[in-house]
Amino acid sequence: MKHDRIHFGADYNPEQWPREVWPEDIRLMREAGVTAVTLGIFSWASVEPEPGRHDFSWLDEVMDLLGEAGIAVSLATGTASPPTWFSRLHPETLPVNRDGVRLSPGSRQHYCPSSPVYREAAAGLAALFAKRYGTHPALALWHVGNEYGCHVRECYCEVSTEDFRAWLRARYGDLDTLNDAWSTTFWSQRVSDWADVLPPRTAPTFRNPAQELDFRRFSSDALLACYRAEREVLRELTPGVPITTNLMGMWEAVADYPSWAPELDVVALDLYPEPKDPAAHVDAAFFHDQMRSLGGGRPHLMMETATSAISYRPPNRPKRAGLNRLWSHQAVARGADGVMYFQWRASAGGAEKFHSAVVSHGGSDNRIFRETAALGAELAGLRDVAGTRVPAEVALVFDYANWWSLELDARPAELRIPERVRAHYLPLWRENVTVDVVTPEADLSGYRLVVVPNLYLCTDEAAANLRRHVEGGGHLLMSFFSGIADACDRIRLGGYPGAFRDLLGLRVEEFWPLSGGETARLDTGRQADLWADHIVPEGAEVLARYVDGPLAGEPAVTRHAFGAGTATYLGTRPDERAMRELVRDTLRRAGVRPVAFGLPEGVEAVRRGDRLFLLNHNDHPVLAAGTELAPLGVAVLKEGR
Amino acid sequence: MKHDRIHFGADYNPEQWPREVWPEDIRLMREAGVTAVTLGIFSWASVEPEPGRHDFSWLDEVMDLLGEAGIAVSLATGTASPPTWFSRLHPETLPVNRDGVRLSPGSRQHYCPSSPVYREAAAGLAALFAKRYGTHPALALWHVGNEYGCHVRECYCEVSTEDFRAWLRARYGDLDTLNDAWSTTFWSQRVSDWADVLPPRTAPTFRNPAQELDFRRFSSDALLACYRAEREVLRELTPGVPITTNLMGMWEAVADYPSWAPELDVVALDLYPEPKDPAAHVDAAFFHDQMRSLGGGRPHLMMETATSAISYRPPNRPKRAGLNRLWSHQAVARGADGVMYFQWRASAGGAEKFHSAVVSHGGSDNRIFRETAALGAELAGLRDVAGTRVPAEVALVFDYANWWSLELDARPAELRIPERVRAHYLPLWRENVTVDVVTPEADLSGYRLVVVPNLYLCTDEAAANLRRHVEGGGHLLMSFFSGIADACDRIRLGGYPGAFRDLLGLRVEEFWPLSGGETARLDTGRQADLWADHIVPEGAEVLARYVDGPLAGEPAVTRHAFGAGTATYLGTRPDERAMRELVRDTLRRAGVRPVAFGLPEGVEAVRRGDRLFLLNHNDHPVLAAGTELAPLGVAVLKEGR
Amino acid sequence: MKHDRIHFGADYNPEQWPREVWPEDIRLMREAGVTAVTLGIFSWASVEPEPGRHDFSWLDEVMDLLGEAGIAVSLATGTASPPTWFSRLHPETLPVNRDGVRLSPGSRQHYCPSSPVYREAAAGLAALFAKRYGTHPALALWHVGNEYGCHVRECYCEVSTEDFRAWLRARYGDLDTLNDAWSTTFWSQRVSDWADVLPPRTAPTFRNPAQELDFRRFSSDALLACYRAEREVLRELTPGVPITTNLMGMWEAVADYPSWAPELDVVALDLYPEPKDPAAHVDAAFFHDQMRSLGGGRPHLMMETATSAISYRPPNRPKRAGLNRLWSHQAVARGADGVMYFQWRASAGGAEKFHSAVVSHGGSDNRIFRETAALGAELAGLRDVAGTRVPAEVALVFDYANWWSLELDARPAELRIPERVRAHYLPLWRENVTVDVVTPEADLSGYRLVVVPNLYLCTDEAAANLRRHVEGGGHLLMSFFSGIADACDRIRLGGYPGAFRDLLGLRVEEFWPLSGGETARLDTGRQADLWADHIVPEGAEVLARYVDGPLAGEPAVTRHAFGAGTATYLGTRPDERAMRELVRDTLRRAGVRPVAFGLPEGVEAVRRGDRLFLLNHNDHPVLAAGTELAPLGVAVLKEGR
Repeated sequence: MKHDRIHFGADYNPEQWPREVWPEDIRLMREAGVTAVTLGIFSWASVEPEPGRHDFSWLDEVMDLLGEAGIAVSLATGTASPPTWFSRLHPETLPVNRDGVRLSPGSRQHYCPSSPVYREAAAGLAALFAKRYGTHPALALWHVGNEYGCHVRECYCEVSTEDFRAWLRARYGDLDTLNDAWSTTFWSQRVSDWADVLPPRTAPTFRNPAQELDFRRFSSDALLACYRAEREVLRELTPGVPITTNLMGMWEAVADYPSWAPELDVVALDLYPEPKDPAAHVDAAFFHDQMRSLGGGRPHLMMETATSAISYRPPNRPKRAGLNRLWSHQAVARGADGVMYFQWRASAGGAEKFHSAVVSHGGSDNRIFRETAALGAELAGLRDVAGTRVPAEVALVFDYANWWSLELDARPAELRIPERVRAHYLPLWRENVTVDVVTPEADLSGYRLVVVPNLYLCTDEAAANLRRHVEGGGHLLMSFFSGIADACDRIRLGGYPGAFRDLLGLRVEEFWPLSGGETARLDTGRQADLWADHIVPEGAEVLARYVDGPLAGEPAVTRHAFGAGTATYLGTRPDERAMRELVRDTLRRAGVRPVAFGLPEGVEAVRRGDRLFLLNHNDHPVLAAGTELAPLGVAVLKEGR
Repeated sequence: MKHDRIHFGADYNPEQWPREVWPEDIRLMREAGVTAVTLGIFSWASVEPEPGRHDFSWLDEVMDLLGEAGIAVSLATGTASPPTWFSRLHPETLPVNRDGVRLSPGSRQHYCPSSPVYREAAAGLAALFAKRYGTHPALALWHVGNEYGCHVRECYCEVSTEDFRAWLRARYGDLDTLNDAWSTTFWSQRVSDWADVLPPRTAPTFRNPAQELDFRRFSSDALLACYRAEREVLRELTPGVPITTNLMGMWEAVADYPSWAPELDVVALDLYPEPKDPAAHVDAAFFHDQMRSLGGGRPHLMMETATSAISYRPPNRPKRAGLNRLWSHQAVARGADGVMYFQWRASAGGAEKFHSAVVSHGGSDNRIFRETAALGAELAGLRDVAGTRVPAEVALVFDYANWWSLELDARPAELRIPERVRAHYLPLWRENVTVDVVTPEADLSGYRLVVVPNLYLCTDEAAANLRRHVEGGGHLLMSFFSGIADACDRIRLGGYPGAFRDLLGLRVEEFWPLSGGETARLDTGRQADLWADHIVPEGAEVLARYVDGPLAGEPAVTRHAFGAGTATYLGTRPDERAMRELVRDTLRRAGVRPVAFGLPEGVEAVRRGDRLFLLNHNDHPVLAAGTELAPLGVAVLKEGR
Repeated sequence: MKHDRIHFGADYNPEQWPREVWPEDIRLMREAGVTAVTLGIFSWASVEPEPGRHDFSWLDEVMDLLGEAGIAVSLATGTASPPTWFSRLHPETLPVNRDGVRLSPGSRQHYCPSSPVYREAAAGLAALFAKRYGTHPALALWHVGNEYGCHVRECYCEVSTEDFRAWLRARYGDLDTLNDAWSTTFWSQRVSDWADVLPPRTAPTFRNPAQELDFRRFSSDALLACYRAEREVLRELTPGVPITTNLMGMWEAVADYPSWAPELDVVALDLYPEPKDPAAHVDAAFFHDQMRSLGGGRPHLMMETATSAISYRPPNRPKRAGLNRLWSHQAVARGADGVMYFQWRASAGGAEKFHSAVVSHGGSDNRIFRETAALGAELAGLRDVAGTRVPAEVALVFDYANWWSLELDARPAELRIPERVRAHYLPLWRENVTVDVVTPEADLSGYRLVVVPNLYLCTDEAAANLRRHVEGGGHLLMSFFSGIADACDRIRLGGYPGAFRDLLGLRVEEFWPLSGGETARLDTGRQADLWADHIVPEGAEVLARYVDGPLAGEPAVTRHAFGAGTATYLGTRPDERAMRELVRDTLRRAGVRPVAFGLPEGVEAVRRGDRLFLLNHNDHPVLAAGTELAPLGVAVLKEGR
């Protein structure tokens, strides 16, 4: 799709409705200001109702209707959910779980990511779409598959096992290297034949953590290979049409998105912030920042979101009046060039019929449709925002291998990346400091400050990268349990944190995780919990010490001048207020300026292109930067005002 | 069994005891006033210890002993638990769960309900019983199987799959109709070959809800077919002997009992109210009302209950002195012509040895036996109550398809039918208004008021039926989320609640389910929670509005004059007091008179035939309708007194 | 190993490290005062990297290095974790769970305990070790397998099924006896062919409890047979070398240890008290007492414990300074002749890398190593304690069959043996009374008092044994729900508690388990909960009665003079204070004298040989028996002082 406007639209599933409804759909789309729809995501069984018998007539008709109405089509290849006949003819394509249970068709995403049979059939279907619609005027974007890994992230079948072996061969070359990488002398797990290499199926107790980690890496790659198989076909047949698939904006380690992003022509995001959650908009901000960063700063699309209630988290709370508008503007502010809903018309049957839509079960004479149509008109007015960029001086390091490994069994404490990342992102958001979300190996040259939440596992390259950043005058804020393991989940020996001792100017002698409700007071008057490193400074200055708890008198927070920069280290989890103070202090030191100063709490400010977006997440009116904002209100100000 | 007395007795399992014990059993039965026993429920392995080798000698002897003692026998066909050799010779008869695990013998009920092998073997055994005992003077009733579906409600094996397909063929005729009924265009689930139709086995995410619902309907029918296979044989060989099986009085959607009831000559109820639960007697009242209504008002039997502690809900609290007497009288008051216990003599071994019995492990010199024997004598004095009826002017609508579908995944809120039905039944019970429990399609002509708790799914016939009831001058009380879906779980489009908009005189624009502890105040001074419909009145009068919460100012409770009657609608869950006031008001309006007025709280009054039963569920004495009732006391008053 | 010193050491896994590290290990071992190491536990894949290809060279080298350093070796047979090639070549040796899922290799202990293929291979490997190292000067002890049953306690595969049948044949002889023992007339479970006898796989509902119980007995024996298979080979080839395996000191019914102990030349204990648990030291005391008693009073070894944090219970709290010293002295005080750690050097990779060790990831320049080395020196000074005994006048009855059966489904209340045993052990520990932990059939002649926590299941022999003890002048303290069932989990009929009515001088008419938070007051001013027997005294004196609750006015605690002794009975669970008073009173009556009087709370006193150990579990200093003890301090006083 062209970045010549803020696109507005929805998933459109006309095959669920009789032909008579389609013209009415087009009429309402125009009324709502729809510029684009995603078509055909679950169309496989409709375009190929029996093996080899195809019926594209209905789709031809819909494409024409949309084209005539000037609505751009993000056309899906229909491969997200194979037809029932496909599973019957190729039962080995059904995924198998850790216990060996082969999953049944009857929901969606019931395919083994490693299956060559599935991949070929999917590529074949994509080719049919490409040949038939490649030159259709309505075609604007290919949408491959759908929400890869949302339900089936891993498969433990024999086909996957073979594929896993091939992947490991490519990664490690020989078994000696694999044995070394997996530390197989522990518990007598040494492998002497490739046939002995297995996925981490249900076993008597904790599995080999390096095997678990590699299996997740492999599974992400196996899903990506599904995408690539279709993409190759599409690129060859329709070289000018951009291609994407929709990534998930949620706190689950679905796949290693940084390795996916270069394969997408535009990054597309499915985002379902929870209306019941008072902090949902902060998470949403994070995911927009992540997606924008995955695209290297280029605009992304919010490919799916809900107009109101979401179906799978009962109670399904609707979005109150104004909330969808607010969150849609947030998307645009943070880099999206499109706001699209799942779905256009609420389904009458099936598993998601209580998911809100643009057109409800009751029709269009209601709040949801009216609000959506008004928003469509409003976004049309932001045409010149499209294609512009969102500047950021701070980078937050976020790594999937670290996420996967940190949450494996038998870590010193049950740390969870979502909580850990949120704890670092929230104070930055509150300060109205825009953040890019980057890998540990990313080019950090543009950033004044790099924030590193709990990077347990890190590559040598990442360690050097962060070191270089500080040495060259950058600043760093890092939390405990970072730099402990290498890429194979092997401890970096010789004193924690092996990768960062010199950078941080300290040694951690022991980890003292705190129990459930246990807290420790700091000499700054604040509290901490969850974890306490026993820090032995080796050059670092102590910013805070424990007053009580198991490490009373010992350092809790330190700062180390290193090269031309500084590295601040948190050996514990300070309370929210302390965290905010520390972040504020570090920002000041790094010379990072917020987008706007002195805004009331709950007001988000983002600069995009020449616009300043002010978003009031409060249910009361506020005065922000001289502008009055209604409850849940939005202002888009031209810069220079 | 003849309805010439209130039967009193127990399950009798003499095969667990040496012959010497049997005469002592008979002696104690006489002492306890036992008139009937259920014999042979788990006798298959005893009467056919090896394939084809039968041994009925012990049963002959017991039948004769009972016959000589004048004790009627409800004779089981012994098919509830196949012998171990049967499972070994026919492993395909063992049930398979959703994950594909084939269950093992070694507990009970280990048969696939669709298995023709099991059904034939069971019918064959029933025939042997019929031929041998069909003319035995002690035989009073055939007891087929036992607690169908108590543990194995559904089977996912290949045999069941084939049977499910046949059932669907019979229901829908062709695949187009099935695809339409199951809304299979959603998620690309269209079926083009009957071989693709599967039971809802474990899948990547939510299954097709219409498939889930039909599978439960089918599973109920498959169990019923087991019953019918035996019943046909018995009816042919012993045409004069009544036949039944025992239904479960519990808050689980075991099977669609309304379709079972016409197949039973007398409705038999297994009822285990929990002595720990202070509201157990209200649930018990409900289940008696349900069973009486299933029999069309004819007396039912309480086929199983406990003299004291129940074994499977640890801690197993005994019934305190008087409680068994009270609850047994409640059964009679609400229409039972029999009070029977599981079991006569507490087992020394096996999984239920801590279930109380008439004769305990310690023998008969104890409280339980003494109380039971006294009760036996007392019930003998109620001989002329047998066969009489319990009048009711209120009907409560209760539907299994609605129950199954409402509790499927991804509903707007996690509503649970047990809670929802109890919330409507309790205020009626407290007002001492007797209630029939009916299907939505039942003949409602005799009722002044029909109460409809949350009838999410309803057939067109049901919708017309309720409409007709109000039009003709009846009254209706209905709760939110009713009339939303048709029999295939497809939304009735055009505005909620599709089936009842004109009847209720309103439209519901959106559902606003409330979160966990969230409440909303009403302008009546009461509170509500769980759910809030956004109601747009279209003729209905507003009885209460929200004062706060997400729908402040909007209607919460409405009433609509429709034809000659009224339809009252609750768009939320009011608190208990508000619910009671509303029910009281609706009863007044409908002209329903309680069985008795002005009784103390906790006293239950039921009219049966010419008797008024007064049951004091309090642990203190009360004066009720001029009668003094001891704690847990009972009075059975001749009417006209 | 010789009992000529308090051994000090660790599991040593040199195969995880390059050869260069080994001399450094030896140097540090000497520095730390290490006298012994356990070698080779997970060495199978290292000594036999491919089927039939052996490589002992590295082990030869390590044995020599240790021998030269004068460090004794507890040499493992390496059979705890078969190599991956073994599982591939013999997939039928992988264990199968209750649902039929075959577990995968990739963690450890992945073998079916009944597998003849595994047993033969393990014995073969043991023979290779024996032949190669049987005369090596460093060899001091054979360590067979490792932590049998820690993860795989039971297997439900076909091989296990056949083995279970053979075991049952040996136990019961014929099917009639089996049917009787298993009470199979209940639920039609009569078995007429050995082929019908199955392990208790997943079934529709509660399994036969006697089958469950026998399967656990069998599974313990199957594991023991694995140990014995190796032991036979070792004994034959190296008759002079003692043999053991390490038992688990944890609150799980791993295996019937009393039947294992006679097969071990020295009892070895793996003990991981939880640093987060403030009562961990009391549990530790119990397990030392149990292990010492299993060895008939002979010293045991603490074969594994942690220097600091444990890896599998996140958060992994380290042991604070002094705690490891304190707990190590506790081991010695209660009979251990060795204190050994898992492990010598913390692993860099694998599932347990965050388990603390003697040498940490950071090396030896830290608190843990310094404390450990200091302890090594200190224990060297206790050389003459080695081999001495710990006297006890009180026996606590602890039985695995009772444990297994009491926790099966559908008991009157959910009693848990760990809580029950702790409730009886704690007041004895607080009184500084040393306790032996014995089977119900043990020789009780040396004990003044026998404490019997909730012995639901007991053999006739046990009943006679306890009776004889009291008759002969001993004293007894027994808790409710004892003596109810025989060894086959069949109720002892004729009145509870069948096995002990005459001994206790009472009858229990009904069990009245109390619900969740429910309590009953006693006329002693104390409270009780969990359970209330309805006691009818038949000779017993009433010590306390219920003031309220369901049994108000009835006896709660009784005492019966029987023969020359007394039997005190608790029909409920008194609160902690009441329990302590009762225990104190019973000790006085039995003439039992504590090790020391008038110690401050939290100070443990144990006599071993001619030493009095005083252990201060408080975090403050105390004055105990005239000795000043620092926080977590230890004093070892020569008796006669």
